[in-house]
Amino acid sequence: MNVISKITAPTVTTGPLPASRKVYLAGTAHPAIRVPLREIAVHPTAGEPPVTVYDASGPYTDPDAAIDIATGLARHRTEWARASGDVEEYDGRLVKPEDNGNLPADKLTPAFPVAHRPLRAKVGKAVTQLAYARAGIVTPEMEFVAVRENLGRENLGRAAEKDQRARDGDPFEAEIPNFITGEWVREEVASGRAIIPANINHPELEPMAIGRNFLTKINANIGNSAVTSSMAEEVEKMVWAIRWGADTVMDLSTGRNIHNIRDWIIRNAPVPIGTVPIYQALEKVDGIAENLTWEVYRDTLIEQAEQGVDYFTIHAGVRLQHIPLTVDRVTGIVSRGGSIMAKWCLHHHRESFLYEHFDEICDICRAYDVSFSLGDGLRPGSIADANDAAQFAELETLGELTKIARAKDCQVMIEGPGHVPMHKIRVNVTKQQQLCGDAPFYTLGPLVTDIAPGYDHITSGIGAAMIGWFGTAMLCYVTPKEHLGLPDRDDVKVGVITYKIAAHAADLAKGHPAAQLRDDALSRARFEFRWEDQFNLSLDPETARLYHDETLPKEAHKVAHFCSMCGPKFCSMKISHDIRAEAQKEGMAAMAEKYRAGGDLYMTPEEIAARAEPAE
Amino acid sequence: MNVISKITAPTVTTGPLPASRKVYLAGTAHPAIRVPLREIAVHPTAGEPPVTVYDASGPYTDPDAAIDIATGLARHRTEWARASGDVEEYDGRLVKPEDNGNLPADKLTPAFPVAHRPLRAKVGKAVTQLAYARAGIVTPEMEFVAVRENLGRENLGRAAEKDQRARDGDPFEAEIPNFITGEWVREEVASGRAIIPANINHPELEPMAIGRNFLTKINANIGNSAVTSSMAEEVEKMVWAIRWGADTVMDLSTGRNIHNIRDWIIRNAPVPIGTVPIYQALEKVDGIAENLTWEVYRDTLIEQAEQGVDYFTIHAGVRLQHIPLTVDRVTGIVSRGGSIMAKWCLHHHRESFLYEHFDEICDICRAYDVSFSLGDGLRPGSIADANDAAQFAELETLGELTKIARAKDCQVMIEGPGHVPMHKIRVNVTKQQQLCGDAPFYTLGPLVTDIAPGYDHITSGIGAAMIGWFGTAMLCYVTPKEHLGLPDRDDVKVGVITYKIAAHAADLAKGHPAAQLRDDALSRARFEFRWEDQFNLSLDPETARLYHDETLPKEAHKVAHFCSMCGPKFCSMKISHDIRAEAQKEGMAAMAEKYRAGGDLYMTPEEIAARAEPAE
Repeated sequence: MNVISKITAPTVTTGPLPASRKVYLAGTAHPAIRVPLREIAVHPTAGEPPVTVYDASGPYTDPDAAIDIATGLARHRTEWARASGDVEEYDGRLVKPEDNGNLPADKLTPAFPVAHRPLRAKVGKAVTQLAYARAGIVTPEMEFVAVRENLGRENLGRAAEKDQRARDGDPFEAEIPNFITGEWVREEVASGRAIIPANINHPELEPMAIGRNFLTKINANIGNSAVTSSMAEEVEKMVWAIRWGADTVMDLSTGRNIHNIRDWIIRNAPVPIGTVPIYQALEKVDGIAENLTWEVYRDTLIEQAEQGVDYFTIHAGVRLQHIPLTVDRVTGIVSRGGSIMAKWCLHHHRESFLYEHFDEICDICRAYDVSFSLGDGLRPGSIADANDAAQFAELETLGELTKIARAKDCQVMIEGPGHVPMHKIRVNVTKQQQLCGDAPFYTLGPLVTDIAPGYDHITSGIGAAMIGWFGTAMLCYVTPKEHLGLPDRDDVKVGVITYKIAAHAADLAKGHPAAQLRDDALSRARFEFRWEDQFNLSLDPETARLYHDETLPKEAHKVAHFCSMCGPKFCSMKISHDIRAEAQKEGMAAMAEKYRAGGDLYMTPEEIAARAEPAE
Repeated sequence: MNVISKITAPTVTTGPLPASRKVYLAGTAHPAIRVPLREIAVHPTAGEPPVTVYDASGPYTDPDAAIDIATGLARHRTEWARASGDVEEYDGRLVKPEDNGNLPADKLTPAFPVAHRPLRAKVGKAVTQLAYARAGIVTPEMEFVAVRENLGRENLGRAAEKDQRARDGDPFEAEIPNFITGEWVREEVASGRAIIPANINHPELEPMAIGRNFLTKINANIGNSAVTSSMAEEVEKMVWAIRWGADTVMDLSTGRNIHNIRDWIIRNAPVPIGTVPIYQALEKVDGIAENLTWEVYRDTLIEQAEQGVDYFTIHAGVRLQHIPLTVDRVTGIVSRGGSIMAKWCLHHHRESFLYEHFDEICDICRAYDVSFSLGDGLRPGSIADANDAAQFAELETLGELTKIARAKDCQVMIEGPGHVPMHKIRVNVTKQQQLCGDAPFYTLGPLVTDIAPGYDHITSGIGAAMIGWFGTAMLCYVTPKEHLGLPDRDDVKVGVITYKIAAHAADLAKGHPAAQLRDDALSRARFEFRWEDQFNLSLDPETARLYHDETLPKEAHKVAHFCSMCGPKFCSMKISHDIRAEAQKEGMAAMAEKYRAGGDLYMTPEEIAARAEPAE
């Protein structure tokens, strides 16, 4: 560690969520790992243990953690990498002026104050999670993921009794075990059905897995653009996004200062950071797509791999031969990376350099364990273009590339659409699984209609929930500003919460063994008028409380056995409690048993027989 | 008409939506009918006709209409009813003090200033749309619906060419014709698959249909409660809800002044108004469920039928024998009407008076053509309780009641849940169709998870889109305040827009022949950088424009060929246009043809063969 300069670091949002406590679980094979989970306490009258939930928020929600953005998070994974014996430290690439848009010193975002020498694989070694999985090794990352995905279910008490009922989902092709072990994670990674994006140069990472047999994950996009640019804003956006549940964050910056802002982000990110390297490469050639070269691109990959980017979106599936298929489309090519590559191919009338140099790209990814997120450069940008020849032609190429990458021990996921009406969503997943050897699918939405700009978090949230159920492993969020403008902090939150809803709904429908526990805990709180518990167990306690207090602001109302919607006389839940009290007197439980067994409570056998025949 | 008093009428929101013009189409069999549609003009550079959309907003969006809330809307349907020869005018029931909660004069909402003598069926006559349909009569209401559902597609020009492509949905059991005729509407009504809720005492109504082969409809709830109460607010909420697309409005008032407020609402409502009569009946017995009687309830039905309520939610399916099935539930009974009836049954240990007197209820509905909305009093209030024995036992009873009502020529739809995880939605629809003879399904959401209070418009919008696709005919909206508080004006709008999204997504997925036309028009506008058209064609032009202007406020930016999201260099659509220009030079269209035909553009036959075999 080498402190370069002393600068004023930006502040970020810290502190626990309401009624929440951070807990850390240890591993068995790797006892030193500290796997974070969040415990939400409920009111003592409930007689229930805290509800344990997945926690992507990192140390920022831990009051015991000392947060200093100018130092960065603790680098616990460096040890893990070194312990493998497969890595070497080296000097790394020098930062060049074009990495930050050739800005003069006074306009440059300061470099991150602490410099770290990068690691890379020793010659002949692969340091990817896939390589280790294939070698039969359960890495610390794999055990970390296993403990994390179990959500501490070992200690559930009352809630655990309901496990069996909670498992009545329809998982399609997913096979989700009751409990997850490090060995099982290894098998999933070895098969290619899951990836653990974890660059060896991102030791601040808390590892997570993306795969259809794991909890459904979500990604939030951040990034400056030519229009606006601030390191402090972007770091806070990242911290803010993970506070509400983003599992990974993509830095889609396209303006100046890209290199330095990315450094600040990664050094403070406990989640995987993804990028689209072609964006920075394009900046290096002044935005002229035709001037892109393999050399500029290659140099950008190494630059970013040394910084610790965990996954690269690479649009290598946009081939020269696919471009004519987009000419009759209603909305052409809507992927930025896809359109840039298409323009390059067409201008030079040559095959894409990403496609031609894919082998070399794999070698770089293999040396740092950067996962592939094979970009869907020809994804549909409208309902009219959904599931068309262009999209599926590219998907076929992505299948080819998946095989090549896996042959080099590289981890791969596949990006997906976009805009797709509901009836075309399922076939999109099935085709992806078939063509891409069950590589994890990572989709943007999809939006199920084009007619609601301003509400595209919702149009896409519908598609996201469905495609998540069908087997998509990670859902890329869409904010209310999609198609219209740049998301602000509020938009980021709304986008993240909407996608947490979609992901959770998918987990419920797939029958994830722990998913329904939180629904049940919140529903019990609702039925028992534990208002504070209702707020605290929700995805956004602040908003839930705010909405409640708009009508009934007094603290006394938070123990009231009714609410503003119906008032006391019309409260169905209050009446339900009266009914139960009465029912207990009458031995209703036994009567229900009788009814369920096919009998009837108040009818004679003749009446039952008569009822079985239609009345007209 | 008899003006009782002169009072200051409330003001409501009027005026057209941006770039929109109201048009009225005439009928053929009934040339006097004026069927409203909305034409949205697009920029002349598009070279496209206006886009015609369904319009539930009534005269309020017509600048030529004179709106006076104290007079009410024009009563065009009175003539239609009289022309049948089946109705008689009579004195009607006198308003009683308990109809308005026994309020003293100074606290009473003023009576609606104009009194109308009610109509009812002559003895021995049925005046329901179902009776006429069965008799082979295409009523003005039926032709109105037919013209309305076609969305003026006769005059579509360029957009109509795409009709065929737009019809690739998966309709499940729905059978949607290319064009709808009055005769076809009659058949749908006669079969019971659709209803036209249209009380003969609501002549201000613009008729609409609810059925799985029609456009998917949405309902918005309004209504005062014990906590807050204002006639002006409720009338404006109704006008506001239909402005954004609510097809029907339910008045769920539970406080005082119920009778008078309802009069103001109905006299100014161009959409069907639904109620839950048990709410008012309960107010009449001071909120004590046990004190409810058939006589009080019956009197309330007549009171509301004379006012012109178009459909009644009646929880006659909550039978004494079902109550024990709810005792082990996580959230008991969450329907207000359901819990009231359950309490009554249990207290008296008697079968529900709604069930026992169902025949007489049918006689009342038959005399005014009030449609049944058979309430799901035992709908699940949590994921844990979805699709349980209680819900399905009640559904079976609703099937019985449907037969009884239909035998009396009454129109019936069936209410549905509630809270249902995604994998249990489809079976819910299938069971409803089977048990209830294909009566239209009218569902609340369903919410696909319980963990997001504050966002339940979204958790339920996901379920609503799916259940709409599967065959639900009308979706009852949920606002962001659900479970927390009373919706304000903004919440009503967000709820309506979210449900318009769900309904439209369902129509797309079902392959409704006109649904995709609006998506395509908006997508073309997007691709051609016609920003104003994008805003105007969207469900909420105000919000779309606002979000755009937050980043790029200048008027000049609304003709810019890029936007704030990516800036000019990274605009994929701009690049797509460059690609098309280049493609034209190169004869790309022909090349695409070749590729689609199974060939390849740049590969030799040997290469193609090699590609067909896996690389590893």
